[in-house]
Amino acid sequence: MSKATNIVWHESEVTKQNRQQLKKQKSAVLWFTGLSGSGKSTITVALEKALYEQNVHTYRLDGDNVRHGLNQNLGFSPEDRTENIRRIGEVAKLMVDAGILTLTAFISPYEADRNQVRELLDEDEFIEVYVKASLAACENRDPKGLYKKARAGEIKGFTGIDAPYEEPSSPTITLDTDVLSVPEAVQTVITYLKDKGYF
Amino acid sequence: MSKATNIVWHESEVTKQNRQQLKKQKSAVLWFTGLSGSGKSTITVALEKALYEQNVHTYRLDGDNVRHGLNQNLGFSPEDRTENIRRIGEVAKLMVDAGILTLTAFISPYEADRNQVRELLDEDEFIEVYVKASLAACENRDPKGLYKKARAGEIKGFTGIDAPYEEPSSPTITLDTDVLSVPEAVQTVITYLKDKGYF
Repeated sequence: MSKATNIVWHESEVTKQNRQQLKKQKSAVLWFTGLSGSGKSTITVALEKALYEQNVHTYRLDGDNVRHGLNQNLGFSPEDRTENIRRIGEVAKLMVDAGILTLTAFISPYEADRNQVRELLDEDEFIEVYVKASLAACENRDPKGLYKKARAGEIKGFTGIDAPYEEPSSPTITLDTDVLSVPEAVQTVITYLKDKGYF
Repeated sequence: MSKATNIVWHESEVTKQNRQQLKKQKSAVLWFTGLSGSGKSTITVALEKALYEQNVHTYRLDGDNVRHGLNQNLGFSPEDRTENIRRIGEVAKLMVDAGILTLTAFISPYEADRNQVRELLDEDEFIEVYVKASLAACENRDPKGLYKKARAGEIKGFTGIDAPYEEPSSPTITLDTDVLSVPEAVQTVITYLKDKGYF
């Protein structure tokens, strides 16, 4: 700046901690993983509402706002699935840096991909939530009719049918939706967050 | 959910408007564009601090947190520059949806790329800020020594030297840093935001 040659170059002086203080919450990513139809979307939508009612600032990343936007140039090959999760992880990291409690709802079938996201963040900033349901239960629910199409061979590489789902080896939270109702699942996560002082 | 077959599927019930209300601010992206050395980073860092002091929740996207993360697999070819700006635009859109006043500081030399981002957002959500400085002034400042390297041929495709910079044809705000000091530039933007009711 012509008038400001004596101004010292400052790195960003507003930090993640500042933004968290502004909101009186600790930011992290709640990474929901599980089969299609396991309940990831339903639970994260209900959780988002419950957190909003307690003035917690959240944001939810899911197929609707990511696959049609940032990741619209990716398909479902193993390489593209990996790049899909990598980008989501990087965006989640930015959201956490912005001070937001971030909810992600993606099948994210590969443990290596999930662990790559975990590595991006501090230990208490990555909360892996395994939405566990039997394949039979998911296929029975089949909310989008996708299992039926996969069984008919109309969709190739469908997780659980002809593509693998690698269960989390040590998830932070497991929600067994063969047993838990949606409100019970939401309460389980809320209790965890409160106990750990996230808000 | 096995216990919740009577639960109606809800689309996300927490909206951008809810998140804005939570923070008593309107979200948008302040898209700073200009030559290397024009003052984008310096101004956005100072602006972020000034906004924080007024309890405005912001987030700043710049080369440091984007080029080394989300866009680490992109180079500086015209195609990669376009994909770089496309991804930044999509992330900025998510940040705006999250209720955050988002500051971006990228050269973003192509008008078509900037307009593609504009198209992603509502009219009052994309505020183009042209950080205007003569090439001579930028080259004279050369805070990172990049112009010197570009003139020596050590960097190819450097904006302003051997790659084009397309000036915004109708920026929302122009900050002429050949004339304005950093505090003056910051105040210009703050005044605009207040006048338009962003906070």
